[in-house]
Amino acid sequence: MTASSPRSRRATIIDVARAASVSRQTVSNAVNTPERVAPDTLARVQSEIERLGYQPSRAAQTLKQERAGAWGIELNSAGVGRLGAVLDTFLVELTAGAAAHGSHVVPFTAPDPLQPIPAYERFVASRVADGFVLTDTRNNDPRPAWLEAHHVPYAAFGRVWDDPSITSWVDVDGAAGIEAAVRHLADQGYERIGYLGWPEGSPVGDDRRSGWTRATVDLGLAHPEWEARTPQVLDAASSAAAGLLDALGPGGALVCASDTLALGAWRVLVARGLEPGRDVGVVGFDDTDIAQALDLSSLHQPLDRVADRVLHVLGARSASRDPAGGLLLPPELVVRSSSKPAGDRTTPKEK
Amino acid sequence: MTASSPRSRRATIIDVARAASVSRQTVSNAVNTPERVAPDTLARVQSEIERLGYQPSRAAQTLKQERAGAWGIELNSAGVGRLGAVLDTFLVELTAGAAAHGSHVVPFTAPDPLQPIPAYERFVASRVADGFVLTDTRNNDPRPAWLEAHHVPYAAFGRVWDDPSITSWVDVDGAAGIEAAVRHLADQGYERIGYLGWPEGSPVGDDRRSGWTRATVDLGLAHPEWEARTPQVLDAASSAAAGLLDALGPGGALVCASDTLALGAWRVLVARGLEPGRDVGVVGFDDTDIAQALDLSSLHQPLDRVADRVLHVLGARSASRDPAGGLLLPPELVVRSSSKPAGDRTTPKEK
Repeated sequence: MTASSPRSRRATIIDVARAASVSRQTVSNAVNTPERVAPDTLARVQSEIERLGYQPSRAAQTLKQERAGAWGIELNSAGVGRLGAVLDTFLVELTAGAAAHGSHVVPFTAPDPLQPIPAYERFVASRVADGFVLTDTRNNDPRPAWLEAHHVPYAAFGRVWDDPSITSWVDVDGAAGIEAAVRHLADQGYERIGYLGWPEGSPVGDDRRSGWTRATVDLGLAHPEWEARTPQVLDAASSAAAGLLDALGPGGALVCASDTLALGAWRVLVARGLEPGRDVGVVGFDDTDIAQALDLSSLHQPLDRVADRVLHVLGARSASRDPAGGLLLPPELVVRSSSKPAGDRTTPKEK
Repeated sequence: MTASSPRSRRATIIDVARAASVSRQTVSNAVNTPERVAPDTLARVQSEIERLGYQPSRAAQTLKQERAGAWGIELNSAGVGRLGAVLDTFLVELTAGAAAHGSHVVPFTAPDPLQPIPAYERFVASRVADGFVLTDTRNNDPRPAWLEAHHVPYAAFGRVWDDPSITSWVDVDGAAGIEAAVRHLADQGYERIGYLGWPEGSPVGDDRRSGWTRATVDLGLAHPEWEARTPQVLDAASSAAAGLLDALGPGGALVCASDTLALGAWRVLVARGLEPGRDVGVVGFDDTDIAQALDLSSLHQPLDRVADRVLHVLGARSASRDPAGGLLLPPELVVRSSSKPAGDRTTPKEK
């Protein structure tokens, strides 16, 4: 007997959703809150549930009966061995916020971050957590579908990119942030505004980039060739930034998908004897220690509000209410000397 | 009735230890593993236990009967709203290591980091955790004594500075690390090696500083005036570094208590047109993103080993065995361009 044998495999929520031509959420509603489903849809779903012999997961049923008062959160889901500045602050906010709601947070790691499901399965089976907070959502992320199929409550910090019908997430509007950075630089008098971003295909990166496209087109400053793409690695970022800065020339400005990329650009500027904000404008993303240390303007994510809304979505889902998620919060632009007003830019350096 | 009324107050492990002139650990052993205590000591302790009416805490007794399989860890115990680079990596290592031992980690925050005990009390009372991992241990830290008095197992990442008789900790040997940095700089040909540290009174800072004193005396390079102290704030660090660099002159070197202080020195050097490693040697502490980004030599803490040993101490304590703690692990010096060999130092910059 193999796991893929159709005869031995138990029907999942996905099988029911396909057979009834509805979303997983609708199947879930038909099981948990049938009064909220249109009568003909409910009849169709219930008929498929019976035909396929679908049974909501026992683990999820048990969870409903005996609450642990805890939310699991996978650490190291990006496989880099640490949280990093954004998720570090998010975890502290989430921990403090959970306590205020009478619950707590239980971190765990998947031995293989590329195959995370067994770790979630173990946590559900051992009833350590009532549900999960997801971070680092990505394309082909297996976690939301698995959690939906097993009726396990969850909320994501980050959009569920693969399935727009799933709305149990809270995210920061990267495109709006980058757009604000472009408009800020234009307000300072910059006319050649390039974008230093990540390789195509990362949903977070593609979203941030769209803010640059939108704002430069809108402002009549669009030059699609003023773009360079680089992985989130400092030396590669410096190389990419060097070429882009050659194209932009002095008096140009760079909006970057992260503070690491901004640091790559900053290193090139300093090596060339140029000063960020006086000679070339630079804006980063995430407002990390690096941005603060090097006086780089950067976009700050409102992590206290993200944590609060994630807990709200989780609470609603675990009570089988509409999560009211799919919420985008704008980041805040923190202006530092790397994107000085135009008047200051031509002033000779004093110190 | 007030909390300090001697008549109403229940005797604690500290009262028994004082009355019997033994350590708290010995009282704990007399209660939990009497076979391991010398007969005359045991008799004295038992006599005082009876006389004072001492009863091991009920919460701790309950914990022993019904294990949660979880270790609590206070986040934000330094009150800065996030873990920072060192504790971020430590938490990921601790979470992964706990799972390998069949337990997990439950973070929490104290609403007031200066008054943390109520948060520990709540966690013990609600039986969410069997014991605790302490971080950011400090002078007048109320946590170890409270945990000892309540027979709650714990292990600290960081020495219990107030009470050398408590050995349930694992720490990184900051003094040995700074000493290694001084010897490395001396090996590169530097003869004027100053120290940029924190204000006196921080036990971690005083320990690190002692490595500089020890190594410079030992090498015949001692100049006590080549020292500056500054809080862990970038602008203050730059001011302090500026004065110290004036005293040392070109060709000197700076060992710093943290990468933030090293960054402060680095900013002064760059502003003066000097290059770290070519003109002035610089070594930081913690091997953060900043050190990597600016190519600064720095001391790297072995956080995977710290987490492993902390879990070992916790496991021993919760089984009422000798924790075999009080373990100092050496940090590793990561050499980068800011402490180049002497031969390279006089070479003109090529790029």
